[in-house]
Amino acid sequence: MMKLGCCYYPEHWPEDIWTEDAKRMVEMGLSQVRIGEFAWSRLEPTAGHYQWEWLDRAIKTLGDAGLEIILGTPTATPPKWLVDSMPDMVAVDAQGNPRKFGSRRHYCFSHQPYREQCARIVEAMAERYGDNPAIVAWQTDNEYGCHDTIVSYSEAAKLAFRRWLTDKYDNVDALNTAWGNVFWSMEYRSFDEVEPPNLTVTEPNPAHVLDYRRFASDEVVTFNKLQVDILRARSPGRDMIHNYMGFFTEFDHHDVGRDLDVASWDSYPLGFLEQFWFSDEEKLRYTRQGHPDIAAFHHDLYRGCCAGGRWSVMEQQPGPVNWARYNPAPLDGMVRLWTLEAMAHGAELVSYFRWRQAPFAQEQMHAGLLRPDSEVAPGGHEAALAAADIQQLGQIGETAKSVALLFSYEAAWLFEAQPQGQSFRYLELVFEMYSALRQLGLNVDIVSPDATLDDYKMLVVPSLPILSASLVDRIEQLGVPTLFGPRTGSKTMDFAIEAGLPPGPLQRLLPLKVSRVESLRPGLTEKGADYDVTRWIETVETDLPSDEVVADGRGVVFSNGTVRYLASWPPAPLIKRVFADMTKEAGIDILHLPRDLRVRQLGDVHFAFNYGTEELDLTDHIKGDTLVLGDAVIKSAGVAAWKAD
Amino acid sequence: MMKLGCCYYPEHWPEDIWTEDAKRMVEMGLSQVRIGEFAWSRLEPTAGHYQWEWLDRAIKTLGDAGLEIILGTPTATPPKWLVDSMPDMVAVDAQGNPRKFGSRRHYCFSHQPYREQCARIVEAMAERYGDNPAIVAWQTDNEYGCHDTIVSYSEAAKLAFRRWLTDKYDNVDALNTAWGNVFWSMEYRSFDEVEPPNLTVTEPNPAHVLDYRRFASDEVVTFNKLQVDILRARSPGRDMIHNYMGFFTEFDHHDVGRDLDVASWDSYPLGFLEQFWFSDEEKLRYTRQGHPDIAAFHHDLYRGCCAGGRWSVMEQQPGPVNWARYNPAPLDGMVRLWTLEAMAHGAELVSYFRWRQAPFAQEQMHAGLLRPDSEVAPGGHEAALAAADIQQLGQIGETAKSVALLFSYEAAWLFEAQPQGQSFRYLELVFEMYSALRQLGLNVDIVSPDATLDDYKMLVVPSLPILSASLVDRIEQLGVPTLFGPRTGSKTMDFAIEAGLPPGPLQRLLPLKVSRVESLRPGLTEKGADYDVTRWIETVETDLPSDEVVADGRGVVFSNGTVRYLASWPPAPLIKRVFADMTKEAGIDILHLPRDLRVRQLGDVHFAFNYGTEELDLTDHIKGDTLVLGDAVIKSAGVAAWKAD
Amino acid sequence: MMKLGCCYYPEHWPEDIWTEDAKRMVEMGLSQVRIGEFAWSRLEPTAGHYQWEWLDRAIKTLGDAGLEIILGTPTATPPKWLVDSMPDMVAVDAQGNPRKFGSRRHYCFSHQPYREQCARIVEAMAERYGDNPAIVAWQTDNEYGCHDTIVSYSEAAKLAFRRWLTDKYDNVDALNTAWGNVFWSMEYRSFDEVEPPNLTVTEPNPAHVLDYRRFASDEVVTFNKLQVDILRARSPGRDMIHNYMGFFTEFDHHDVGRDLDVASWDSYPLGFLEQFWFSDEEKLRYTRQGHPDIAAFHHDLYRGCCAGGRWSVMEQQPGPVNWARYNPAPLDGMVRLWTLEAMAHGAELVSYFRWRQAPFAQEQMHAGLLRPDSEVAPGGHEAALAAADIQQLGQIGETAKSVALLFSYEAAWLFEAQPQGQSFRYLELVFEMYSALRQLGLNVDIVSPDATLDDYKMLVVPSLPILSASLVDRIEQLGVPTLFGPRTGSKTMDFAIEAGLPPGPLQRLLPLKVSRVESLRPGLTEKGADYDVTRWIETVETDLPSDEVVADGRGVVFSNGTVRYLASWPPAPLIKRVFADMTKEAGIDILHLPRDLRVRQLGDVHFAFNYGTEELDLTDHIKGDTLVLGDAVIKSAGVAAWKAD
Repeated sequence: MMKLGCCYYPEHWPEDIWTEDAKRMVEMGLSQVRIGEFAWSRLEPTAGHYQWEWLDRAIKTLGDAGLEIILGTPTATPPKWLVDSMPDMVAVDAQGNPRKFGSRRHYCFSHQPYREQCARIVEAMAERYGDNPAIVAWQTDNEYGCHDTIVSYSEAAKLAFRRWLTDKYDNVDALNTAWGNVFWSMEYRSFDEVEPPNLTVTEPNPAHVLDYRRFASDEVVTFNKLQVDILRARSPGRDMIHNYMGFFTEFDHHDVGRDLDVASWDSYPLGFLEQFWFSDEEKLRYTRQGHPDIAAFHHDLYRGCCAGGRWSVMEQQPGPVNWARYNPAPLDGMVRLWTLEAMAHGAELVSYFRWRQAPFAQEQMHAGLLRPDSEVAPGGHEAALAAADIQQLGQIGETAKSVALLFSYEAAWLFEAQPQGQSFRYLELVFEMYSALRQLGLNVDIVSPDATLDDYKMLVVPSLPILSASLVDRIEQLGVPTLFGPRTGSKTMDFAIEAGLPPGPLQRLLPLKVSRVESLRPGLTEKGADYDVTRWIETVETDLPSDEVVADGRGVVFSNGTVRYLASWPPAPLIKRVFADMTKEAGIDILHLPRDLRVRQLGDVHFAFNYGTEELDLTDHIKGDTLVLGDAVIKSAGVAAWKAD
Repeated sequence: MMKLGCCYYPEHWPEDIWTEDAKRMVEMGLSQVRIGEFAWSRLEPTAGHYQWEWLDRAIKTLGDAGLEIILGTPTATPPKWLVDSMPDMVAVDAQGNPRKFGSRRHYCFSHQPYREQCARIVEAMAERYGDNPAIVAWQTDNEYGCHDTIVSYSEAAKLAFRRWLTDKYDNVDALNTAWGNVFWSMEYRSFDEVEPPNLTVTEPNPAHVLDYRRFASDEVVTFNKLQVDILRARSPGRDMIHNYMGFFTEFDHHDVGRDLDVASWDSYPLGFLEQFWFSDEEKLRYTRQGHPDIAAFHHDLYRGCCAGGRWSVMEQQPGPVNWARYNPAPLDGMVRLWTLEAMAHGAELVSYFRWRQAPFAQEQMHAGLLRPDSEVAPGGHEAALAAADIQQLGQIGETAKSVALLFSYEAAWLFEAQPQGQSFRYLELVFEMYSALRQLGLNVDIVSPDATLDDYKMLVVPSLPILSASLVDRIEQLGVPTLFGPRTGSKTMDFAIEAGLPPGPLQRLLPLKVSRVESLRPGLTEKGADYDVTRWIETVETDLPSDEVVADGRGVVFSNGTVRYLASWPPAPLIKRVFADMTKEAGIDILHLPRDLRVRQLGDVHFAFNYGTEELDLTDHIKGDTLVLGDAVIKSAGVAAWKAD
Repeated sequence: MMKLGCCYYPEHWPEDIWTEDAKRMVEMGLSQVRIGEFAWSRLEPTAGHYQWEWLDRAIKTLGDAGLEIILGTPTATPPKWLVDSMPDMVAVDAQGNPRKFGSRRHYCFSHQPYREQCARIVEAMAERYGDNPAIVAWQTDNEYGCHDTIVSYSEAAKLAFRRWLTDKYDNVDALNTAWGNVFWSMEYRSFDEVEPPNLTVTEPNPAHVLDYRRFASDEVVTFNKLQVDILRARSPGRDMIHNYMGFFTEFDHHDVGRDLDVASWDSYPLGFLEQFWFSDEEKLRYTRQGHPDIAAFHHDLYRGCCAGGRWSVMEQQPGPVNWARYNPAPLDGMVRLWTLEAMAHGAELVSYFRWRQAPFAQEQMHAGLLRPDSEVAPGGHEAALAAADIQQLGQIGETAKSVALLFSYEAAWLFEAQPQGQSFRYLELVFEMYSALRQLGLNVDIVSPDATLDDYKMLVVPSLPILSASLVDRIEQLGVPTLFGPRTGSKTMDFAIEAGLPPGPLQRLLPLKVSRVESLRPGLTEKGADYDVTRWIETVETDLPSDEVVADGRGVVFSNGTVRYLASWPPAPLIKRVFADMTKEAGIDILHLPRDLRVRQLGDVHFAFNYGTEELDLTDHIKGDTLVLGDAVIKSAGVAAWKAD
């Protein structure tokens, strides 16, 4: 059964209220608590002088109250004395400026002496608390990459990049060939000549950029693994967790996830709506709810980021936040809705950030479950309601596989390095396809291209520019309806155009060539039957008939057996029709949901979530089924659940 | 009687025209002239070698013509030889770049050796001219802060900030506690670890930022005082003046004003309209007039910046300027209107910038009273008209106190450090309330929260986030109708949320708690009776009834006796209604002015100013009163004045 | 007869396909090929070790196929080993950052040791290939200034600037006077105190900026001349060419052109439309054609950049490019149209960029005549069609002179240094006047103010702020209808306002004074008869009658004999009427072309180009003339040509 929890900072509060806090957490229905991840300056106020006693007492207090503790390593916030002892440990931005102490994440992943310091503090913590029965899990660091901190242009990064290239290419001629450095006399005579791809006169070689992004991602993997290895050795049986972020693709979360037991993420639907690409119309319509696919998208994505499919929400927005351009309050009911939606997608834990709103420092305007004056905030009341709902629903079974959507972090880096049209943004492309699937009522798993695809009934590949022949083979063998989106198979591993033109290895299944591509400025469209193609369209050479043709005669959808290719940015009406056709072939039932409604099936329970401000009547749909939560008429921000009879 | 003057640069012109220039000034009706403030390279062409003779002759020529001289200290433009002798004297911007020689204001306020150089040149000038009878006043430096020059991130500033913090907090633990540095392990072990709050990975601690802003403001105060002290000692009986700017809040003008005799400001209504936040509609409507409240707002603000209420316009726009994005010409009549409006608000002097348009260097496209070919420009003709009007009106008495609006520079810094919604801008909030008061025909004094409030009949506090208990006491004792705007009393001195929630100490007069706040993106509104709440709304817990309620049931105005709280950004119809109610309680008469008309009462004279392009008929209003200037039908850009019979 | 060619990079392709490539070029109708300009790292892989053999073979292969070779010097892409040997050779941007290796153009024009390296490699190439009969021309470097590389703020540039100033002013007092440095105590005691005008606190002295721009331009001239002198000495009889860019004014192309035999340019109509100032409406209407005046404007401009009027298109867009924000494909027919339009304007060569699309590195998404898989791309097919058309048309004679439009690079720099209104952009001003002339069907020559103006029937001077008395004399002597646009004659050589006010020396022909100027924000207009004045309007003092008056009574067109002055930004209806009046006086026939049609006369051949998406019927216009190409009904992207009988 899904647990609830919260993020707590005993070091922020007088010790005499810890006991009461712990008691109130339990009363609210929480059973887990995350602590410690920003406390380095309190654990080690000066170099080598640890002060464990306060944390000992905090852990005891919380544990005694019956709470399970997730203990964070404090490496996201090295103290000032440490930074002053090695000032070059900070990251350097693309403009060449050091990114200084004074907030958080002021370190470069490639700085070896800082890694040694991290190993030291993690070892010390593991030594002291590894066997503590109250500790059930460890969180490594905090939100890798927050504040654009993955890619650094420091001296340390430069040297580490050279080592990474040496490992990859062995000799520099191989690198020159792979990158096509002959192009502008960019050839190197040795790896020691290579520099980070910043501050170049005009755009650097995209192959150079892509390798730098791969390198930067790998640095996160090894940084994380260093901690995990220490913790596993000294704290056996505990889960290893990291808390990922929303709409964030700067490192490969699948790679990091391979070393974790649980992938968790930090869910701030209102902030994400405000800060990302959504239209003004959407930002207003969903200002107090978040777009109905934001939370679900990440639930389904992060479920695919750990081998066992275990995942959690480590930080759940409980009210207004402080960090978006505008920070409205959620509609009454949304905190509960978000919580139950995580449950419907299979979360193990929803942990609210944070227990009590801190009255000081950067996040003083970030709501908590409690107000700064310790009264229960609206979010706290809803957490208690959600706790009761979870009890009422009880244990629910596993979910059968249905649709897999393939997601590639490398694809995101590649298209950023060379978008060819500034509106071609990979994450948006994926999200639009995901949203179309969800509007059809489908359960979706977002998985790595390397994931096992067995048992899925249908596949969606929004775009996979670097497409391996082996994946083509696997998909052929699966034989289920599969859609490949634009630019799939367009590039080699070395960021060159496929010799036989795109879609490269996919041509074995789909005999067609993309002979020309166009990016379209806003307002420029190609008319289709009931849709407009925007942003991107390809010219395809093929003997296959076109399933869909636009006004100038170009085909935009081609199919061969169960495999389809979409030669444009996906217009919503078109892509929903294509998906509907595919589900028919796959034998999957679909719905046509109204705009504000989303559903998900978990085990034998069907959930429905109303993201609108008006009530929605599902009476006809639910019919004879048994309601196990809520009503058939779902009010604004409401939830219903039922089981088929 | 208000004087007229101009800014003159004898060093820019051949000496043989000085005499003629002086004669023409007097003929135009000018009696004061400001000189010298950019002339350092001519006074001291090489280190220590002064060349006073030209200035001796200039002062004599102007003085002999009967002009009173305001002599500027040249410290805003240190010469190249001086900068080269200590290159680290320049300010450093937030990106870490030195702000180099080649224009003006290329110094850091915290650089001690530069301060010594300033003291030296000021002393030398005071020594030579302190007793000169032609000198009636000194202007220190020029436009402190122009071109974003208050906050510097130099080494000098860093060291001075550490000293300032040491003085303020005495021990570093006190600082850590005050700022809440435990939050992200930001704790310091000594003051020597503290750095300026720039180039941090994400936003720095707002308490850190606020103290840095306070420090930077204090640096201006001591920099200015250094000069004032020297001048007062060597030039007794002369007024000490600085020329402030428009819409500028980077340092505390009240603090600097405590060391001055006269607060002056530089009034460029067209440039300010273009460069600041006004809507496109307003920028077009008032493109050749300026928004009708821009000049008045500053008149009323700077009158409150010197103990005695003495103030001037040191630079008055006389025609098109050079520095706005677009630089149209004023409507015929506007230069005269601006001049007489300054008079109506109580100015001692309106000094036009500049006598003659310079044909060279940065400001060659800035109009003067004369054209570059020495013909009288349109602004010069209007200055002469204004001189005649002033004579005609004669000496006018004092003005009775009416409405005080409390303005806090610290509040501006605080909301910049943590706006919580990007449209919450303090200066706009204040201006909107001020404009509403002015549209009701009220005389307004904009004063410091520390000002004596005796004799005011009504108080408006647009927002005062750091609210002292003593001010609450004083306001209670005054017992006049008082409005407090949103976020008043929301923060402690240390930039933390008030323990008992906002409005903190105000709860003694108004028993309510702000339990939650929301910032609203453009387009998101809460509907009220005849208004829309935009930008900001608060959720209030209280037993008080709501005077105004929006559609979702939340109250936005609460009152208790004479004290009111506004829990949202002020919608114009609502705030005008609230002010009207308050004036009724206060026994003050109001008008409902058309959009382009503004009035002010000075002594027994009522002035009216037509900022529109159509004539306005005031016949019914003036009725039996005696016109002392202009006609009852005021033409575009026209002025009328009358006395009640 | 105009030749066709292409840009080819043998070093990008396996040697075994060179012969086939050369053969296919000839078959497609190409006769010239440009090679070598980015090949430094292959010609000299390590310092001083040349590898000529591959280039020997490439030249032999191409030459043997009958192709004429234009050989580029590789100085735009110095290899890494060279940069590492003198890291200070790179340019420094305005923010003070070095502009590093990793793309191209990573050098500072003022770096003397780099110049020596350039001389060395150019000498070595000239030595080896100077007499090679296959080499018919040399291209120096590549696209001077691309990626904003003219102005550098490096130490090398600083020192060179000081030398340049010393040469120009001889003594520093002259400089101080010329710039008006007294203004803000900006006076220097020696040239060694002068710095580049970047990182100043607010805007630097515009006279300082203008001299820095003149200096930077002169550096390009001497950099180019260094190569030309070497090549002329060692490769007699070959043409010296540089390939200029589109809409680029950072250096004086007339000055550089004085050392060349042929001015060539790189024509990318779709990319230029997208990246420059055109309205959204124009960007959508012409998204696959380019604005109808973009290519022609540059043809007519660059024809004026070499003494003999010889010019070429060195790089012609053959399909979608990679570098604009959005990169659509040209309409079918546009590549042919652009080619024939260059012919109609008198080009010697149109060379397509590039032969085959490279599958790797920065420009992998840039189309070629061949696709990456070596199939002929649409652009290749159209090149072959154009080759046939050229054959069909045969040799065509010279064109009689008609309208000269005076273009000044210095004017562009001056208005950038001090626009006075941010919408006053010189290149747009010129383009709008040029477009108006073209819409009247006129042949236009865009020429330097220093050009011989004999035989022109009409002159247009969009604006010439620095107007020499001698040019005024020459124009008086010509006695043909001449229009001077706003701000003409407004500044001295030293960037000061003319003593007798603008238009300065022009007052001899047109007795008027510009007494005041206004820049107008978007939306602010002055109404004229059938037009709105936007952006800029002047107030003119004169006894001349006004030919055109706006609503507030100000005249905007004044004439005296054959000379006219336009006192505002040119509204299209007004300027077309003025030009029509002038052609009448000049005895030139005009047309009133529909929006998408352009015509040009070359010798006795009249060409017409349809830039629209609908067909245009010219039957009535062509009447009894003899069609020599195409039909009287010109289809979208079509061309027609006819001769008068």
